Amino acid sequence: MPSPGAGALFLVEIHEQPAALARLASRAADLEAVAAAIRRLGRPLIRIIGHGSSDNAASFGVYSFGLIAGLTALRDSISLPVYYGAEIDLRGSCVLALSQSGRTPDVVEYVRRAVTQGAYAVAITNEVDSPLAEVADAVLPLSVGAERALAATKTYTAQIATLALLPAYVAGQGELYSEGLIATAETLRAWLPDVGATLTLLASQLCYTGRMLIVARGPEFATARELALKLLETCRIAAQPLTATELAHGPVAALDPLFPVWAIAGADAGLQTVVEAVARARAAGATVIVSGEAASSLAGAATIPVPRAALPLLAPVLSIVPGQLLASALARAKGLDPDRPAGLAKITVVP
Amino acid sequence: MPSPGAGALFLVEIHEQPAALARLASRAADLEAVAAAIRRLGRPLIRIIGHGSSDNAASFGVYSFGLIAGLTALRDSISLPVYYGAEIDLRGSCVLALSQSGRTPDVVEYVRRAVTQGAYAVAITNEVDSPLAEVADAVLPLSVGAERALAATKTYTAQIATLALLPAYVAGQGELYSEGLIATAETLRAWLPDVGATLTLLASQLCYTGRMLIVARGPEFATARELALKLLETCRIAAQPLTATELAHGPVAALDPLFPVWAIAGADAGLQTVVEAVARARAAGATVIVSGEAASSLAGAATIPVPRAALPLLAPVLSIVPGQLLASALARAKGLDPDRPAGLAKITVVP
Repeated sequence: MPSPGAGALFLVEIHEQPAALARLASRAADLEAVAAAIRRLGRPLIRIIGHGSSDNAASFGVYSFGLIAGLTALRDSISLPVYYGAEIDLRGSCVLALSQSGRTPDVVEYVRRAVTQGAYAVAITNEVDSPLAEVADAVLPLSVGAERALAATKTYTAQIATLALLPAYVAGQGELYSEGLIATAETLRAWLPDVGATLTLLASQLCYTGRMLIVARGPEFATARELALKLLETCRIAAQPLTATELAHGPVAALDPLFPVWAIAGADAGLQTVVEAVARARAAGATVIVSGEAASSLAGAATIPVPRAALPLLAPVLSIVPGQLLASALARAKGLDPDRPAGLAKITVVP
Repeated sequence: MPSPGAGALFLVEIHEQPAALARLASRAADLEAVAAAIRRLGRPLIRIIGHGSSDNAASFGVYSFGLIAGLTALRDSISLPVYYGAEIDLRGSCVLALSQSGRTPDVVEYVRRAVTQGAYAVAITNEVDSPLAEVADAVLPLSVGAERALAATKTYTAQIATLALLPAYVAGQGELYSEGLIATAETLRAWLPDVGATLTLLASQLCYTGRMLIVARGPEFATARELALKLLETCRIAAQPLTATELAHGPVAALDPLFPVWAIAGADAGLQTVVEAVARARAAGATVIVSGEAASSLAGAATIPVPRAALPLLAPVLSIVPGQLLASALARAKGLDPDRPAGLAKITVVP
């Protein structure tokens, strides 16, 4: 059994998110300076790098840069230049390096090489005095305060918010998104006391579940990936994120009544595919859990509605929170400590 | 129980691969023409699209274009333009659209829009008279003959081979890679009769396994993804592909002695990370299966060595084959029919 304080840090940091998000919205000068540098590059390719939760946030960046600023963003390969020695021309590219600690060695090394080759590199980090901040051309601080639980929460939502704000500033919509973020942080603050209670029953129902599929599409696919990682690292559930389209291309054949499917239903153009995926999962006998802004439009065994964000692309800031709270409740129900999952270190130094 | 002929198509098509690969190597004129068009674009961004096995092959393309031709390739989002309506400037981009049938609706639609916006689009397909071939600027036929089993085998390896040959032609190494592919196809032909026998025991050991992690890095990560998809769709195993780095960032906490880990050990710069990941998995008590060119350098409960390909970047052509044969044997051992997995259609028309 965990000690009485097990998971306390994790839970505290989940509840620090409204204040952390509102603080980010006040950093207009930093964001405007980086946005101006990006505009000066013309229409650069945005190369986003990071591991773990940071890489999950990068999935969101692909959509936010595409939809808000019309720019192509990709989750770039760190290993290609750093370990395999690929010589790729990076001139005119913009690198966004995501690292909570700013000390992940291969992320730092990628940025060091990219800058040498003429890329413009931005460190998005919680640690402004880190090696990553040192080698980058500019720093966008997450400013969420020390994250002490091993499983990331407030740094993830701050990364998502930054990856919404930055293309908004590039596209001249910085003020709109800053105000939207402040309103969304306020929505989160008002919602947090309620949502935890609805998850206690679900946590007890999932106590002996060993595997799960998590389905989403578009900007919310980042949420599916992050939820899966939270369940894996804190609750030892083999949760696999899939796009709603991927589910139809094979994995649907592995579904059965013992294989729960969690669908994140965003209120956007991807909803119809998620609805279709849920129908196929139910036809296979799977128990379906639904969350997200459009959760109430789908019938799940458990339904976790998420309040509307002030702007559609800020929805992922809210929609991960039930997953964080569920991971917290489920870990404690299983006798695990989400503050200190077995075998993990906060800064991954494995190459 | 399956009918006596269950899985016959799947097995036949696995064995058709050596001949199919050798045929591809003879298509120098098609490849040279497309390579010349890519060179005329300057140093274009390579946008690879596809679903399912095609998307797995795209993971390989990121490495083959980066390492052989020094070009940035990405697995582009189909949903961003097609469903979310993002308006991204595609001028100067090269699109490689992977679709066995050439009839996947959203892949066709992506290419139609991309061509309208000034991209150069290449259809890599088994069906030269398909809608995809119709809308693209050029076609590279896979020429593997009709694929009748639902789970892709020969089209996947032909896609991998095409994604190695094309950057090689771009970089003036077309002849080297064509000859390498012919030699590698011959290696596969000689190896196929032996490797199946070594997998029968492993298939019986995995009969009651519900989940698995599959770990690889670099070019072999495509193999991990494709092996996971084969196990999911034909054997109903919740197999999750992870890069060796991702494993260290969380999922290692979910490992236990009942959670087998399959590591694909390529003989390349990523090997050290895979060795490290295997050590961590073993420390967590996981049963480890190892395959790949460098399998014998790791101690697994089961070890499946893969012969050396003629060139390092052709290794994934061979390293997926034990996975295909295992899926075939395991599906039959479980009473499933890999030719017709429940709930799947050959051409996925779900958006």
